Amino acid sequence: MAIKSIEDLFLHELSDIYSAEKQLTRALPRLARASSSPKLAQAFESHLEETNGQVERIDKIVEKLDLKLKRIKCAAMEGLVDESREIIDSIEKGALRDAALIVGAQKVEHYEIASYGGLCALARQIGYDEAVPLLTDTLEEEKNADKKLTSIAEQGGGNERAGEEGEGGKG
Amino acid sequence: MAIKSIEDLFLHELSDIYSAEKQLTRALPRLARASSSPKLAQAFESHLEETNGQVERIDKIVEKLDLKLKRIKCAAMEGLVDESREIIDSIEKGALRDAALIVGAQKVEHYEIASYGGLCALARQIGYDEAVPLLTDTLEEEKNADKKLTSIAEQGGGNERAGEEGEGGKG
Repeated sequence: MAIKSIEDLFLHELSDIYSAEKQLTRALPRLARASSSPKLAQAFESHLEETNGQVERIDKIVEKLDLKLKRIKCAAMEGLVDESREIIDSIEKGALRDAALIVGAQKVEHYEIASYGGLCALARQIGYDEAVPLLTDTLEEEKNADKKLTSIAEQGGGNERAGEEGEGGKG
Repeated sequence: MAIKSIEDLFLHELSDIYSAEKQLTRALPRLARASSSPKLAQAFESHLEETNGQVERIDKIVEKLDLKLKRIKCAAMEGLVDESREIIDSIEKGALRDAALIVGAQKVEHYEIASYGGLCALARQIGYDEAVPLLTDTLEEEKNADKKLTSIAEQGGGNERAGEEGEGGKG
């Protein structure tokens, strides 16, 4: 990895989030299957569709700007996906696991919000005008996905209150 | 790791962010030294002080609620810290590296925003009333740190425009 110009930095960040999105497309079906609340499962499924669309937007940016993505693996997303695997392994299916999956998914969304926020700023600075609206669309989708997860969490996983099951587990 | 109740989940998440904050206190002095803009270096230094305060808040929560933190290593923060090391290794000191450090630091802030947001929600749900204001204070600090970084980035790293150096590097 040699970053010598702001264009190189943009390409590096774009390659990193591309890797992150690809890892996420593989993780989301597992998260949907691991959810007990149909509302949460559906949120993961619809975010998978969105994520596929976000990958396509990156492909469009690459095409429009005539770039070549680097083959890098986003280490942070790897850690986040590992954490979601741990959650599934260590908590039985139910409202409590749903609550933990939501916290994990919000960390993923925030990673992406920060990445796309940075990419938007870099694209504006460079003058990559064709990339800006595509990146902004994805940034808005990620912010909405985060809000949707908050609202599902506030409804106790969209099913029953996670706290009830949790308190049951204590006795 | 066995998570059987919502209290266990809270403790797990608190232990995870404690590990993340500890990793960050070790990384921030390096980030400050690696910055060329005095404004950015100062932002990292003052965030180090804040982070130390946030660790103390976690200690207070542990004491008030009579908890015992688990020894876990936050894998996501490990990935984020590794990425910042890569930035330092691959970009010479200057406005471009500053721009990259800001993007990396915003990913860290967003990780923390998501974590503390989740912890606040869990604490409210459980009725850990003494923890809520402490977690909310930290959450607000993290949001402000993110905004401060955005404002430094918009001023081109608080020194000169990263784009200028970047464009210079191209020719």
